[in-house]
Amino acid sequence: MASSLLTRQLAISLRLAAPGSRYVSKTATKSVSEFEYDAPSMKTAVPGPKSQELLRQLGEIQNVGAVHFFCNYEESRGNYLVDVDGNRMLDVYTQISSIPIGYNHPALMKVMTNPNNVSTFVNRPALGILPPENFPDKLIESLLSVSVKLEETQIAPSGMRRVQTMACGSCSNENAFKTMFIWYRNKERGYANPSEQEVDTCMINQSPGCPDLSILSFMGAFHGRTLGCLATTHSKAIHKLDIPSFDWPIAPFPKLQYPLEEFVRENAQEEARCLEEVEDLIVKWRQKGKPVAGIVIEPIQAEGGDNHASPDFFSKLRNIARKHGCAFHVDEVQTGGGTTGKFWGHEHWGLDDPADVVSFSKKLLTGGYYHRDELKPDKPYRIFNTWMGDPSKNLFLSEVLNVIRRENLLEVVTRSGKALLQGLYTLQTQYPHILSRARGQGTFCAIDACNDATRDSIMIKARNKGLFMGSCGEKTIRFRPALVFKEYHVHQLLNILNDVLAEHK
Amino acid sequence: MASSLLTRQLAISLRLAAPGSRYVSKTATKSVSEFEYDAPSMKTAVPGPKSQELLRQLGEIQNVGAVHFFCNYEESRGNYLVDVDGNRMLDVYTQISSIPIGYNHPALMKVMTNPNNVSTFVNRPALGILPPENFPDKLIESLLSVSVKLEETQIAPSGMRRVQTMACGSCSNENAFKTMFIWYRNKERGYANPSEQEVDTCMINQSPGCPDLSILSFMGAFHGRTLGCLATTHSKAIHKLDIPSFDWPIAPFPKLQYPLEEFVRENAQEEARCLEEVEDLIVKWRQKGKPVAGIVIEPIQAEGGDNHASPDFFSKLRNIARKHGCAFHVDEVQTGGGTTGKFWGHEHWGLDDPADVVSFSKKLLTGGYYHRDELKPDKPYRIFNTWMGDPSKNLFLSEVLNVIRRENLLEVVTRSGKALLQGLYTLQTQYPHILSRARGQGTFCAIDACNDATRDSIMIKARNKGLFMGSCGEKTIRFRPALVFKEYHVHQLLNILNDVLAEHK
Repeated sequence: MASSLLTRQLAISLRLAAPGSRYVSKTATKSVSEFEYDAPSMKTAVPGPKSQELLRQLGEIQNVGAVHFFCNYEESRGNYLVDVDGNRMLDVYTQISSIPIGYNHPALMKVMTNPNNVSTFVNRPALGILPPENFPDKLIESLLSVSVKLEETQIAPSGMRRVQTMACGSCSNENAFKTMFIWYRNKERGYANPSEQEVDTCMINQSPGCPDLSILSFMGAFHGRTLGCLATTHSKAIHKLDIPSFDWPIAPFPKLQYPLEEFVRENAQEEARCLEEVEDLIVKWRQKGKPVAGIVIEPIQAEGGDNHASPDFFSKLRNIARKHGCAFHVDEVQTGGGTTGKFWGHEHWGLDDPADVVSFSKKLLTGGYYHRDELKPDKPYRIFNTWMGDPSKNLFLSEVLNVIRRENLLEVVTRSGKALLQGLYTLQTQYPHILSRARGQGTFCAIDACNDATRDSIMIKARNKGLFMGSCGEKTIRFRPALVFKEYHVHQLLNILNDVLAEHK
Repeated sequence: MASSLLTRQLAISLRLAAPGSRYVSKTATKSVSEFEYDAPSMKTAVPGPKSQELLRQLGEIQNVGAVHFFCNYEESRGNYLVDVDGNRMLDVYTQISSIPIGYNHPALMKVMTNPNNVSTFVNRPALGILPPENFPDKLIESLLSVSVKLEETQIAPSGMRRVQTMACGSCSNENAFKTMFIWYRNKERGYANPSEQEVDTCMINQSPGCPDLSILSFMGAFHGRTLGCLATTHSKAIHKLDIPSFDWPIAPFPKLQYPLEEFVRENAQEEARCLEEVEDLIVKWRQKGKPVAGIVIEPIQAEGGDNHASPDFFSKLRNIARKHGCAFHVDEVQTGGGTTGKFWGHEHWGLDDPADVVSFSKKLLTGGYYHRDELKPDKPYRIFNTWMGDPSKNLFLSEVLNVIRRENLLEVVTRSGKALLQGLYTLQTQYPHILSRARGQGTFCAIDACNDATRDSIMIKARNKGLFMGSCGEKTIRFRPALVFKEYHVHQLLNILNDVLAEHK
């Protein structure tokens, strides 16, 4: 441990001697540095020979077109992902934004070695019928716990004391949609029992039992890939081609200019245009006989290209939902868990009453969704499946929340996010022909390349220098580091990116 | 350990002294008896006071209408589920058929305490982009392993060397449906690239990009509760009411008379009627412009009431699918994993070539589906999500398969299943006004009560005597014990059921 600290100090002093414009980190905060590496270390191009051999093997079992390389998770630490060829990369994509506090965090290792936890891993219960004794307590100390930082940030979104766990993000959104449909129809029938005709027709997929209700979503949205979710996903054609869908309304998502504070007027106009379209669509679909039961939206469209909108936009959208009797569902699968500097992305809107449903997964390790009391399903088995989540994931989540509190990670994210965004602004000023539209909230940042080929080339070159990033939209690089991503990691990232851009023709 | 064996021997001798018609077990096989209890032991009615208090607590967070009682999983062993009030029940429902080798099996505990496995639990990867080094090997030694019993039963269904893991049963079926839609459209367009119109229209949920294709399912089927799956589920109205659906064809599932061997002619007629309807529906939906891309069916309809059909029915259905160019999808989520006495339910059909897609979950611990080579998605990211399964579940699955091999559990299931079914026949002969239609394959058994109230009353009384069973259909009791359910467990089950029936008015 001491020697590793020494190595880092040495590395930092050496970096002081490096040429002119480089970022230099003075401090390496203990909590992460105690167990992670100092810096990337590359041995081969990526994917290296071992990854290539494994790709061939896995290719006989599955389509491997999306596989980047194979990983050595045992050797990975904190913000550094190690591959099977011994390459150690600074990972700012973190398994599509799903590793909350870095690889092999000691606190999570401890969960595994605690003998009291063994049974939770070995006996996965059917939570909806036979929950374990500690299930209410575990929910209360994790998903329903009152603060991340003492008395400041709630985990449970404002106004929500009910939560349903699920296995993944898609399942969470599917069941959130179902919850909104059930709520909407119960309202329509005045909370009376369903008619015989409804009971009969639902068995054969027909109206009125299976009503022609719809969910309004936004162009560029991503809410998952199961058939219900996919009908609200509009980010890339490859996700949707050849899959039957529902005729549900799709509103334009504002196409804003960045930095947001420089284009307030233009952006407000664009947002007004989109909101008007939302209302038109709600009316049109009601007239079509397919009323909108719910509106679903991401606080920042992620897969669709890291598209932001203003708190004012969301606030007005919320009001439109209320006005037309539609539920308002905020999909925090990617934005939730602290990455924006607040625990939930929608906390940035500052509304008292922001949502009827908030869904989550990824960094929360378990999927699920919160909902207001009014949306409580009126009968058992309406929202149900065999597992309904996984208590072993709740164990890890409790510990993740402890680490977030103990290490003040929301502050870390805010600080690192500022440094990252500032660095991206500098880069796009230096390389205006290559980069533009730097944007972000917390460390949930992105920047556009001039085209997709350039974006892909930058990403491959950066990877070979030890920086692993993600892409989204048409030509965007997205940054999704873990919550333990410190300012000196930001500096490593910016230095590598700067080197790649300097070499770029 | 020795004292526990002694206790069992004592209990068995005592039981010899019990009144007339009782089943008496002579042997307690070591492999299970080494770690599990001897017999049920009841302290309170169920749910007991502690469960009731926890129900109240959880009720403030979730709808608890489906919760039976709260469990002490630490204290549960093998076939015995212990609740928070200290009641120990013989569990023949096993978390909706999802516990393969009983509670706290020592082999699974070992997986947890092996330090080499810690990283797999702590670092859940995005399998589709960054698989761990051992991922192909783990698939080959589990889902693709060549035998359960040496050189006899394959794990991978006949003709299938490709498998895609998923997180749960619904996700598995949703993605299996997508795989069939993609395959069908690729055939239709002659494997050419999609047109510009297809690419554009799919982004807004419209045809031809999102084509009007359908999946043919059967009345009484259960394939999951997400919106795609739910459109093929027709077991109970409460699952479907108020949820929008697709206009997809629904064929009648044969309503057979039991025991099957006594009604061969009548049942064959009924099956012929249903098959004729299947072909009619395929033609009708093609004419409607909603061609059937795939047929999905369970080897035994479970949730719908444990409805069986003959190998001949499935064989002819397979031929119809082939004739009309539809994929044939066997949903083994509940029947898979050994419970029918073969590893897959469809192995009982004896076809060379039974399916294009086989989906699984529950006892396999990970969800997923096998498919033929022809159904391989042609491009990356068409079948994709963040996690695509969970390698920690594959670790457990490998060990479950080892135990199945080592303890010859498929033979155990076959033997126990025969004893169980024989016992159910005897009971329905003794109580013909209460019970009828005993049926089963392996330990996947069921019996009908005269009505739902009687069924529910029998189940509650049995539970209070230490036997926990499941229900399905309108008035059916379903038996879904773990694979370690031995003949002496069968005898315990039958004795309790006999006591309940004897007391029944």
